[in-house]
Amino acid sequence: MRPALAFGRFRGTIGGVTIEIINTGSELLLGRILNTHQQWLCSRLTQAGYAVTRQVLVSDRGEDIQRAVREGLSRADLVITTGGLGPTCDDITRERIAELLGRPLMFDAAVSESIRSFFVSRGRPVPPRTRVEAMVPQGATVVPNRQGTAPGLRMEAAPNPFRPGGQRSWLVMLPGPPRELRPMFDEEILPWITRQFPQASAFVCRTLKTAGIGESNMEELISEPLRHLTDAGMDLGFCARVGEVDVRFVARGSDAAAMVAEAEAITRRLAGDAVFGEQDEVLEGVLVRELTRRGQTLALAESCTGGHLAHRITNIPGASAVFLAGYVTYANAAKARTLGVREETLREFGAVSEAVARQMAEGARAASGADWALSVTGIAGPSGGTPDKPVGTVWMALAGPDGTEAIQKLNRFDRETFKFTTGQQALHLLFRHLVRKAG
Amino acid sequence: MRPALAFGRFRGTIGGVTIEIINTGSELLLGRILNTHQQWLCSRLTQAGYAVTRQVLVSDRGEDIQRAVREGLSRADLVITTGGLGPTCDDITRERIAELLGRPLMFDAAVSESIRSFFVSRGRPVPPRTRVEAMVPQGATVVPNRQGTAPGLRMEAAPNPFRPGGQRSWLVMLPGPPRELRPMFDEEILPWITRQFPQASAFVCRTLKTAGIGESNMEELISEPLRHLTDAGMDLGFCARVGEVDVRFVARGSDAAAMVAEAEAITRRLAGDAVFGEQDEVLEGVLVRELTRRGQTLALAESCTGGHLAHRITNIPGASAVFLAGYVTYANAAKARTLGVREETLREFGAVSEAVARQMAEGARAASGADWALSVTGIAGPSGGTPDKPVGTVWMALAGPDGTEAIQKLNRFDRETFKFTTGQQALHLLFRHLVRKAG
Repeated sequence: MRPALAFGRFRGTIGGVTIEIINTGSELLLGRILNTHQQWLCSRLTQAGYAVTRQVLVSDRGEDIQRAVREGLSRADLVITTGGLGPTCDDITRERIAELLGRPLMFDAAVSESIRSFFVSRGRPVPPRTRVEAMVPQGATVVPNRQGTAPGLRMEAAPNPFRPGGQRSWLVMLPGPPRELRPMFDEEILPWITRQFPQASAFVCRTLKTAGIGESNMEELISEPLRHLTDAGMDLGFCARVGEVDVRFVARGSDAAAMVAEAEAITRRLAGDAVFGEQDEVLEGVLVRELTRRGQTLALAESCTGGHLAHRITNIPGASAVFLAGYVTYANAAKARTLGVREETLREFGAVSEAVARQMAEGARAASGADWALSVTGIAGPSGGTPDKPVGTVWMALAGPDGTEAIQKLNRFDRETFKFTTGQQALHLLFRHLVRKAG
Repeated sequence: MRPALAFGRFRGTIGGVTIEIINTGSELLLGRILNTHQQWLCSRLTQAGYAVTRQVLVSDRGEDIQRAVREGLSRADLVITTGGLGPTCDDITRERIAELLGRPLMFDAAVSESIRSFFVSRGRPVPPRTRVEAMVPQGATVVPNRQGTAPGLRMEAAPNPFRPGGQRSWLVMLPGPPRELRPMFDEEILPWITRQFPQASAFVCRTLKTAGIGESNMEELISEPLRHLTDAGMDLGFCARVGEVDVRFVARGSDAAAMVAEAEAITRRLAGDAVFGEQDEVLEGVLVRELTRRGQTLALAESCTGGHLAHRITNIPGASAVFLAGYVTYANAAKARTLGVREETLREFGAVSEAVARQMAEGARAASGADWALSVTGIAGPSGGTPDKPVGTVWMALAGPDGTEAIQKLNRFDRETFKFTTGQQALHLLFRHLVRKAG
């Protein structure tokens, strides 16, 4: 997971539909686990052109859940709840919402059967208390759960006793575990939302992922050239993350697709190889894909990033096709023994130097037999800096078929941000070489 | 950061004070960044014996902020807001709350001077618009910001126009950036809360971190032996995380410290070396500390964890004193070349085998000269399994001064959880050896 450092100025496009999210779970209020549902659901809805107007987290207590749902239904067209659909005594969301809306719970034989086969297919006995998961509020639609036993539920509050004028609202209940909630939302709920609440006009949202150009410089680079499009109503947004900047175009109406396509073309032309991907892509994923396509392989020689680069690459399914080896040579002796960095180079220039970065990359390439090898050596801090080489000094090198290129950076961040930023710069160095080769 | 997989049954101790959190920020509602404030603040308050009853996230719009604060003050003794105190045009929390409570904003010369010196000491010009950060609602107390320019604010709503009966409430406004919010909360706000809302009686909360025993087995192991304490009012809670289980004791009253100390002693006796730490400790942190104390060193040979183990170890400040090298030998050729794993062993037993795990650990120990070397080799999946060695099969080994020990595990998880769980088992293998040596 990435550090949560992003200060976005993107404003989003507020559609006509009001959506509120209610997260339930005492373990969330106790701070035992992180609420990832909120960001995930908001991001999915934003990308589809909808705006979440409010999110609230309440405990597992019935009165808290009912109060939050009542408040949500008094304001929103759609209220989405997460959690509390399982079989334990804490799981009362279904029951308390049915009570609030005056809908009796009915036993659903089809749900019961699908729960039974979930356990049978895994060779496990059916726990008796899963019976409660087959209880469905009258009038609710069952939403299948591919990854677990508790189905989601979708129901209309019409007339809506809590909304001024009785205007109808919808209520969607999702299970708490992310691996159940996410596919259910993508496969069942989001398609239903787009049908139930169609956009007033065409909606296009596109994100370009960039690295190597800071947020202000990116804004300066493309704002004027895109002025005719933003003047015509296209939204242009920037979101600075650790080591990368998202550029986002949002447009509505019959010209939306053409406007966004033009904005993308202009940005790609001006920003060049700073643009490494689209939508949710990550740089390591793009590299694994591109190396796989070329039938080429990669090795890593890390000092200050301490294995984080290898970890990122191996997070990508299929990485084994391109990634041969990583050498985390933290100690100088390891740099010498494993990568063949010369003792006299270490003595003369120090471990954080262009010469050592080059020898690390070339040594990793030779030791592994890979087509490409990236190396990183630097001073993460907080200690270890000198007037000559302050904390944050980094040298990195890329050894490849046509020789070795080394670059220097100054990254003054906390440890986690330092590792990520430095790794990102190294990956981007390889990305630029691959793009150049292709071009 | 760890995967957010934890299904805690710990119920917490609801004190008499009601606390609500209001997070502001359109970038949060757009799903661009993760709301880490909620978990962090809830965790800090829970550990201090306070319960957060509700959290709400609203946009940067003035009416949304005012409505949320009005609702919070109508229910809670303390309302904590985050975000919106900076100098940009989005930052309107201070102004809109002052307006809501009918408090004029006054220029504070001392705040202005501290903002000025913040910039001057960094050799940067003072941006004119930081002047707004020196505006303080009448009657509010300024809370210094050690890490940034916008101070926090603390004010009393007394009488409280929004609460039935006019009962007074407090309002605390914190800046949005985590590195500003966290020290401010720990150093200034939490001590103030404990003075302003003293616990009715002594409160002791203690967490033991454990690995190697599942949640149900841990519960079975200690519930009965602790029965006399839980019957006497001590809370016993469990929180299952990826690769570890937290055991938590909470007690109030004059016997609180004695009860918790007895519970801890019983648990440590029964769970033995499953207990690796206390409170917020992580296993890799404990290992770096213990190895440093012993003057011993560590090397890693990773295949299926792909550098994640090295990443975890090097996340700990001071790791360079004990960590010599990590070898991410993803390809078989790298296992042979770098670690001296024999070709015939790879051919005969396969890369995921006891023999290869042992040779990897011994090879890493020899190559690095470390006192200890851990190795991991396994099938992360989703592909690569066989009837003999299904997906999730892992062999790991520890080579040390007294020989090599290898163990086998079956870890069937998604990629991220697989890496973390497998790494945790390997680290715990080393932990058990160190503890045994010490015992």
